[in-house]
Order: sequence, then structure tokens, then C-alpha cells
Amino acid sequence: MIADQSITKEDITTFFAELQDRICQALEEADGAGVFREDTWERPGGGGGRSRTITNGAVIEKGGVGYSVVHGEATESTLRALNLSEPAEFYATGVSIVIHPQNPMVPIIHMNVRYFEMSTGHNWFGGGIDLTPHYVVEKDARWFHQYLKTVCDRHDPTHYPTFKPWADEYFFIPHRQETRGIGGIFFDYLKPTSNAHKAHLFAFVQDVGNAFAPIYTYYMHNNRDLPFGEREKNWQLLRRGRYVEFNLVWDRGTKFGLETNGRTESILMSMPPQANWTYDYHPETNSPEAQTLNLLRK
Amino acid sequence: MIADQSITKEDITTFFAELQDRICQALEEADGAGVFREDTWERPGGGGGRSRTITNGAVIEKGGVGYSVVHGEATESTLRALNLSEPAEFYATGVSIVIHPQNPMVPIIHMNVRYFEMSTGHNWFGGGIDLTPHYVVEKDARWFHQYLKTVCDRHDPTHYPTFKPWADEYFFIPHRQETRGIGGIFFDYLKPTSNAHKAHLFAFVQDVGNAFAPIYTYYMHNNRDLPFGEREKNWQLLRRGRYVEFNLVWDRGTKFGLETNGRTESILMSMPPQANWTYDYHPETNSPEAQTLNLLRK
Repeated sequence: MIADQSITKEDITTFFAELQDRICQALEEADGAGVFREDTWERPGGGGGRSRTITNGAVIEKGGVGYSVVHGEATESTLRALNLSEPAEFYATGVSIVIHPQNPMVPIIHMNVRYFEMSTGHNWFGGGIDLTPHYVVEKDARWFHQYLKTVCDRHDPTHYPTFKPWADEYFFIPHRQETRGIGGIFFDYLKPTSNAHKAHLFAFVQDVGNAFAPIYTYYMHNNRDLPFGEREKNWQLLRRGRYVEFNLVWDRGTKFGLETNGRTESILMSMPPQANWTYDYHPETNSPEAQTLNLLRK
Repeated sequence: MIADQSITKEDITTFFAELQDRICQALEEADGAGVFREDTWERPGGGGGRSRTITNGAVIEKGGVGYSVVHGEATESTLRALNLSEPAEFYATGVSIVIHPQNPMVPIIHMNVRYFEMSTGHNWFGGGIDLTPHYVVEKDARWFHQYLKTVCDRHDPTHYPTFKPWADEYFFIPHRQETRGIGGIFFDYLKPTSNAHKAHLFAFVQDVGNAFAPIYTYYMHNNRDLPFGEREKNWQLLRRGRYVEFNLVWDRGTKFGLETNGRTESILMSMPPQANWTYDYHPETNSPEAQTLNLLRK
């Protein structure tokens, strides 16, 4: 990509569409049994998407990889946020993923990369990756953060120190005083100030998107055969309850989608296949479950 | 109660505390196996409550009956809603119930009665009962609405025609375009205009609270032994997913509680023991599941 040429929304959209293809292929290969099913959908106001879901694979119990490109009249709240007094058109495209594994020793993962552009010229990138292990294992957590730091550092030494705390803040469940998992990176409103800067930001977002498959297949390969029993399964189901609570009560993307007539089934691809709630559950002191909870409450 | 004597907040609080006792006793008797466990808690800002939960009974799989009486400084948003410019104290008390049964042929039920009073003198009652059958059965639904209508009509012929549509509107899941269940009654901001009127409103709220046990034990007795299989259980788990979606995304009480540092475990006593999500699930045409869905989408 030559830096002084302008990156178009079509360039970005094509990258996202292909990213979805590549990620689904990598996940199917790593799973070995599960196959994605695809639903294409249209948005009444303009655009649409391709939702791909996988169920009851060998490693993945339920997962969704969504790609969408939607456009139309910007909502009042978008116009207000941008200080625009006249109607304007928006264009938004992105890839969004949540994977719930069978084995409680494999973490839940979430990734999102997105691009937003207004007919007024305003445009920005956003996204992030975060990991939600049912059991926090230090070695696995370190590897994840190191991988993300390496991706970030390739583009800007300030990215990781900025985007890691942003994830810690974003993926927090206030009513539980717990983080959703071990965090990762989160970024939004990355606004290009020049063509060269836009190419630079796009390259970073591409790298984040491309990092998803190697990161998650690493855990799929390494942890898929780790032993577990009823106790670990029960804990997984309770932690999935927390995942549901975060997504439905606090996640801005989910709330915005549900409140603005997004395609419900695509938005709620993030829901686990099963989640449990036990009143006032406290794991045994010093158990692996209690240790995980202590780390999430730090 | 003599109508020209003023009903005090202590009268109402005492009624709610005893209502919790009576309801828990009636539910234990009807269940025959499950026993309530009690947690008392204090609110840092003032007051507290008694949360009673029952798990793995013969009929009730998971249920909570909460009583609370809390007071302290009113929040900014309360003051604004009442057009008050000076700080003021609030006092709030109520009973709140959600019961998730074992058998999918027994409905989920929710009841709430509450009273709110400000140091400025503003005071009002609120509450409601609504039923969420996993399978809508016309006879059962009619009986429920008839019972509520009888309770309402004893007090005011306009209550049922006002409070039934209010429930239909309140217990609606916009992102599913479904009602949560078959509705019931819902009311709020019932403000006394005189001592006699307050006694009249309190008598109505007492009657609503007292209706809970006979209504729910009716379904417990009649439906507890109805046959069901894996198919009905699966459907129940999916419908519980909708219950979770309503409570976490749309229910104002739940959202308000979680956003204002209420006691999380008491607020989320409404969560089912287990809930499932299947991507884009459609029941077979003309099946009992499809028929229920059609009724909820009307």
C-alpha cells in the first residue's frame, strides 16, 4: 500500500470480508469437526451482512463470526456526537467474533474490528481483542498479552500502553466488581489526520484482525485435550452467566444494536449455548475457582 | 383500617415483611420438599433487606422472594423527576418475587409490590404480577387474568382495564418483538390524594400481594405432574434465555438496581438456574412451541 494514496472504504470493506473468510477457515481447520453455516441478511435502511455460526464442533461449542457493511441516514445521536446540525449519511463495516469452547480449559474469546465513515468526511477505526479464560492460567495470559503487545509495537509504541488499560476499563462488570476476563486491547475513534496516517491506522487494524486466528487456534490446539470434570464444567457455566451479564447490561455495542433495531440474531451470536446462575455462589477458599475470581477482582 | 386515619410507612413496611413470610410458607407447603434459605443484608446508605431463595425443590427449581426497606439521600435523578431542587430523603420498601419451576408445564411467575415516600411528602405505590408460561395454555391464561380482574374490580373498576395494558406494554421485548409472557397487571406512581385514598390504594396493593400465593400454588398443584420430555425441557431453557434478555436489557428495576450499586445477588435472584441460546432457532410449524411463539408475537 503506497502511503500517499488514499485508503477507500471499499479497500477496508474488502479486507473485512476476506478476513471473515480466512478466520472461518482457520477455525474450521483447527476444530476439525465443526463447520460454519452462513446466513446473509439485509438491513432495511441499507446494506447488510453475513453471519457465520458454528455449533457443536470438537473444540468450539458455539461461535459466531459476523461481517457487516451497513449504511444509511445517521441517527440523531450520531449527529449530535459529531456536532453536526444537518442530516448526513453513515457507512459502517466490521468483523465481530465471539467463541464459546466446549472444554472449560479453553478460554472464551472476543474480537472486533470496525470502520466508520460519514458523508461529511469524518471517519475512524475501532476494535479490540479480549480473552475470557474460565480459569486464569498465568502462562496463557502472559502469552496473550505479549502477542498483542508485539502486534501493537510494530505500529506504534504508544498503542499497547494506551489500548490495554482501555480494555481493562471497558471489559469490567461494575455490578460484580470483576473484569470480564484478562482483558486485551480496546481502541475506538482512531481518526486519520492524513492519507499516510490513514494507511498507518488501517495497517494496524489489519494486523489486529489477522492476529485473531493464530491467537485462538493456539489455545484450541494446546488446551483442547486438557482434562476436566463436572466441577470445571459447572464453573464454566457460571462464568458464562457473567459473560451474558456483561454483554446484555454493559456492552455498548450490544445495547446499541438491540436498541436500534439491529439484526437480533447476529447481535446475540455472542450468547453462550448454556449459562447458569446459582444464588450467591462462593467457590471454596484457595480453590482454582477462587484464585481466578481473585485475579478478576484485582 | 379506619379510612380517615393516616396509613404510615411503618404500616406498609410491616405488611410487606409479613407478606414475605406468608408467601414463603405457602410456597414451601406447596412445594413439599424445597426450603427457603435467608440472607439478611444492609445497605451502606441506609436500610437493608431479607433475601430468601429456594433451590431444587420438588416443583420450584430456583426462586427468590425478596423483602427490602431502604432509605437515605435521594439520587439526582429522583429529585429531577419530582422537580425538587433541594436535597431530600427517600424511603422505599417492597416485596419482589421470581420463581422458575422444574417442569416446563408450570409457568414462570413474577410479582412485585412496592411503596416509595420522600421526606418532602411525595409518596406512591407500584407493583404488578405477570405470568410467563413456557407453553401458553388458553385455560390457564384465562384463569390468571380472571383472578387478577376479580382482585382489581374489588377496588376500582378502572384498575384492570388500565393495569392490564400497562403490563402488556411493560413486559415486552422490543428486540424480539415478543411479549415476555401472557402479561398480567402493572401499575406505578399510584399517588394518594387524601388519607382515605391512601387507605384505598394500600388495600388494593395488599390484595395484589395476597393474590400471589393462591395464584402460583394453583399452577404448582395442577401442573407439577404434567408429563414432559427432552423437547419441552429444551424449549423451557430457550424461553428462559428470553427471560434473561428481558431482565438484563429492558427491565427498569433490574437496570436501575445494577447501575446504582444495589445488592447484585438480590437483584439477580430473578435469573434462571440455567438458560440456553441457539442461533436463530425456529420451532417446527404448527408445533406447540410455534403456537406459543405466535401468541407472544401478537
